[in-house]
Amino acid sequence: MNLKIALAQINFLVGNIDANVNNIIKAAHHARDELGADLIVFPELTITGYPAEDLLLRADFIAAANNAVYQLADSIAGITVVVGFPELDGDKLYNSAIVLHQGVTLACYRKQALPNYGVFDEQRYFDAGNEPCVFEFNGTFIGLTICEDVWQEGIIDANKQAGAEILLTLNASPFNAGKIHQREAIVCRQIKAAQIPLVYVNQVGGQDELIFDGASFVSDALGEIVFRAAEFEEQISVVQFVDNRPLKGTCAPLYNEITSEYKALVLGIKDYVRKNGFQGAILGLSGGIDSALVLALAVDALGPDKVEAVLMPSRYTQDMSIEDAIRQADALGVRHHTIPIEPAVNAFTDMLADVFSGATPAKDVTAENIQARCRGVILMAMSNKQGKLLLTTGNKSEMSVGYATLYGDMAGGFAPIKDVPKLLVYQLAAYRNTMSAVIPERVITRPPSAELAPDQIDEDSLPPYSVLDPILERYVELDQSAEQIIAAGFRREDVERAITLVDRNEYKRRQSPPGIRVTSRAFGRDRRYPITSGYRGI
Amino acid sequence: MNLKIALAQINFLVGNIDANVNNIIKAAHHARDELGADLIVFPELTITGYPAEDLLLRADFIAAANNAVYQLADSIAGITVVVGFPELDGDKLYNSAIVLHQGVTLACYRKQALPNYGVFDEQRYFDAGNEPCVFEFNGTFIGLTICEDVWQEGIIDANKQAGAEILLTLNASPFNAGKIHQREAIVCRQIKAAQIPLVYVNQVGGQDELIFDGASFVSDALGEIVFRAAEFEEQISVVQFVDNRPLKGTCAPLYNEITSEYKALVLGIKDYVRKNGFQGAILGLSGGIDSALVLALAVDALGPDKVEAVLMPSRYTQDMSIEDAIRQADALGVRHHTIPIEPAVNAFTDMLADVFSGATPAKDVTAENIQARCRGVILMAMSNKQGKLLLTTGNKSEMSVGYATLYGDMAGGFAPIKDVPKLLVYQLAAYRNTMSAVIPERVITRPPSAELAPDQIDEDSLPPYSVLDPILERYVELDQSAEQIIAAGFRREDVERAITLVDRNEYKRRQSPPGIRVTSRAFGRDRRYPITSGYRGI
Repeated sequence: MNLKIALAQINFLVGNIDANVNNIIKAAHHARDELGADLIVFPELTITGYPAEDLLLRADFIAAANNAVYQLADSIAGITVVVGFPELDGDKLYNSAIVLHQGVTLACYRKQALPNYGVFDEQRYFDAGNEPCVFEFNGTFIGLTICEDVWQEGIIDANKQAGAEILLTLNASPFNAGKIHQREAIVCRQIKAAQIPLVYVNQVGGQDELIFDGASFVSDALGEIVFRAAEFEEQISVVQFVDNRPLKGTCAPLYNEITSEYKALVLGIKDYVRKNGFQGAILGLSGGIDSALVLALAVDALGPDKVEAVLMPSRYTQDMSIEDAIRQADALGVRHHTIPIEPAVNAFTDMLADVFSGATPAKDVTAENIQARCRGVILMAMSNKQGKLLLTTGNKSEMSVGYATLYGDMAGGFAPIKDVPKLLVYQLAAYRNTMSAVIPERVITRPPSAELAPDQIDEDSLPPYSVLDPILERYVELDQSAEQIIAAGFRREDVERAITLVDRNEYKRRQSPPGIRVTSRAFGRDRRYPITSGYRGI
Repeated sequence: MNLKIALAQINFLVGNIDANVNNIIKAAHHARDELGADLIVFPELTITGYPAEDLLLRADFIAAANNAVYQLADSIAGITVVVGFPELDGDKLYNSAIVLHQGVTLACYRKQALPNYGVFDEQRYFDAGNEPCVFEFNGTFIGLTICEDVWQEGIIDANKQAGAEILLTLNASPFNAGKIHQREAIVCRQIKAAQIPLVYVNQVGGQDELIFDGASFVSDALGEIVFRAAEFEEQISVVQFVDNRPLKGTCAPLYNEITSEYKALVLGIKDYVRKNGFQGAILGLSGGIDSALVLALAVDALGPDKVEAVLMPSRYTQDMSIEDAIRQADALGVRHHTIPIEPAVNAFTDMLADVFSGATPAKDVTAENIQARCRGVILMAMSNKQGKLLLTTGNKSEMSVGYATLYGDMAGGFAPIKDVPKLLVYQLAAYRNTMSAVIPERVITRPPSAELAPDQIDEDSLPPYSVLDPILERYVELDQSAEQIIAAGFRREDVERAITLVDRNEYKRRQSPPGIRVTSRAFGRDRRYPITSGYRGI
């Protein structure tokens, strides 16, 4: 038998049921008319987007999603459609995949494996299905699965046992560095064991902290990938099956890790700005490496005309910082303004002189924070006035140890590199410069500094990033104990200093804007710690 | 048979295993020596505190908790102890209750019903047990249950079937208005049906957003409450059972709803400050009702010497606001400072004049936000300098519709009345004045105003709170649709305005400090919405 299956790797908007339905119809018609597809498969929870979070607890939302599916059935002819939706049955809600064929439901599958770890909370919303679902289509038996189903042992096999000759999987599998290799390896190992070909369709796009990377694929019954869609892009493709075997198609090459991280960050900024209706983005440009990278990312995401940079020097800002910031803005063709912060800093210093007179210690971070917060006020005023999103430029190393000022440099609606450790910031900057040299070499080579005090450098307060970053990775991402990290060869004092700072700064992270998840454990919905805590990691 | 069971309603610190173990030992010895108890029952997950969130994913933390239990067994003699802990068994983790008797484990029960809704994420951490656990103690058969177990149908009954004559329940049941009545009604209805007496021990204390209200109780086999511990206080008590019947003891009276909310807020502030090691609290005092209430709560929680108020008038501040603020501070015996914000506002206005020249609209919220943010900078500087927690004073109505300035009046480490709707703010203020008149009548009767523009009042931008609050309750807490709310008698334009504002302002709420949950649906861990969302509630 001959069967053409389309993979609809599309960027949906969470919550916008009407728009999503229109996109489904458009894609189905395109697949039918341009690609000659018999069947088109969409990502997990197509109708609502993923993750819709507590919208799924709203009766009106669920009713709208269920009604949309039945309208959809009547709106598409000449091609069979597999879409995901939150299926309401009595007082139970399932994460389901439904097969619509000429106005009729051919099959409806309820997801069995509901992930409730990491960034996933599916058991908060859904009841689990308890059986495979295989339907006949043009003489072929096709099994349905949804995302986590094909990561767990047993469900692929159960589909084969139930008679499936081809397996479809609807996915909303979020990106992190290396995830695509892990995903293909785990899924294809099971496919090979069960000896059944697979059509794997993944969502693409940015949704708050999460990036869905697409890279939908088709595997043959030997677990060999015979087709792969592009990463980080929308793509509707078709794969032909002859006698239940997929014909070899185009396999988009996989990006290396740095490239994929860069592309994920660009997509994350682009979608946050676009989906939330901002006019563009604005950021403070310090002459340092973090804001240099964020500027480049923002320009690559939005174009130079949508991005604005603001230089806000103080008495501690070195001339080379100003020079380098201006060179970056010019190299990227971005409009920039210079607003020295001294008048506001002086105003606050005078206003607080009375209440601070005699306070001990006379010198502390208070004065540094006032500078950072004056910059926050300026940037937010410009953001408010122009309807542009303020991007905050802090990296994951800073977020981990709290080396940032709440309401100061942490101010902003979105934190693109919040999950990017400092050493990776340098790698990404170097990678960006291979496309075109937009970040001056000096920005990359000079010792990092917050420039909030005379001759200040980060290493005055923190271990060098070459030491700090691996400690943080072990503590934050891998949940290793202090003793384990020390045993791995790090100095006790560095480990204890780093861990103490991570433990103490949960309150800051709780108020930070969302950022793009690129590691396997991001702050936010991924790493959920109490603020009030007597736990001491050392 | 004669049996004395102690109820240990204690305030534990999440994560501090050593301190919690010491508190358990101290309480057990007290119950043995002073109260003559045979058995003492502690709250759910005693060893770690509740909820420990992702600390439960740390191998070092789980190992420490399990080791602590075995040390505990050896540290207590002459009284049998029932404590909760995260029980590790191979690669599975259970929410367990263990019975320690003279160094030996008498029984260990694994919680069967793991709540994963509302503020609960137990399926993120735990595997579920699958059977009741009944142990013999001094000739009596005692069943063990944990919190959610006694809310679900069937588990109490299964204990009775398994031979239990008395049931123990270890709980970490968080407060919200009316919760205690719901809790006692649901649990006692099942107790009455199963005809088995119950010892219900609840945690007490504040933990970030959650308040545990204590009110531990003992019910006889008829579902009649024969003993109740105080709400919102630590208490170790003993109840005597004769022939498996509890003797009548002291039943602490239940507070009415307003009183219980007030006490919850006081406890929440007290524990957040104490458990996080702050020197005291500071807040901006505007002369309005919100900051007036927060000031009174803070003084009742911490004492007047630990609280500092700051008046920050602008050109839009009315004289009566300053007068009333000073009267409040004086009435409560709190030190206050006055720092006019004009110099900083003027500095920013001048600094931004060039970039804003020709901007349209020339007048918008930007100027209002600059004022609010100048206040934020001042308060944070004082908080930084003194190590005092900045309390932000916004209420739930404002948080819902975004009528607040990010990094401005929203700045702070803790938001005590974040879950208190405006109308309830008035009720709580009136309640506080019945104890002593500390909030001037004029503060209660004048129309609420942000005082960020000439002659501004809240009703210029929002429906009156008498209309807004019930709409918000229906939309935010009850998940009703616009059509349902309109059908309940509200004007379409008010409903649509309110809902649109709620939908649009998720990004602000995501960066707001944690606050105390007093309703059945608080923003934060309770109501989890995407920021990027195409859902429109209207």
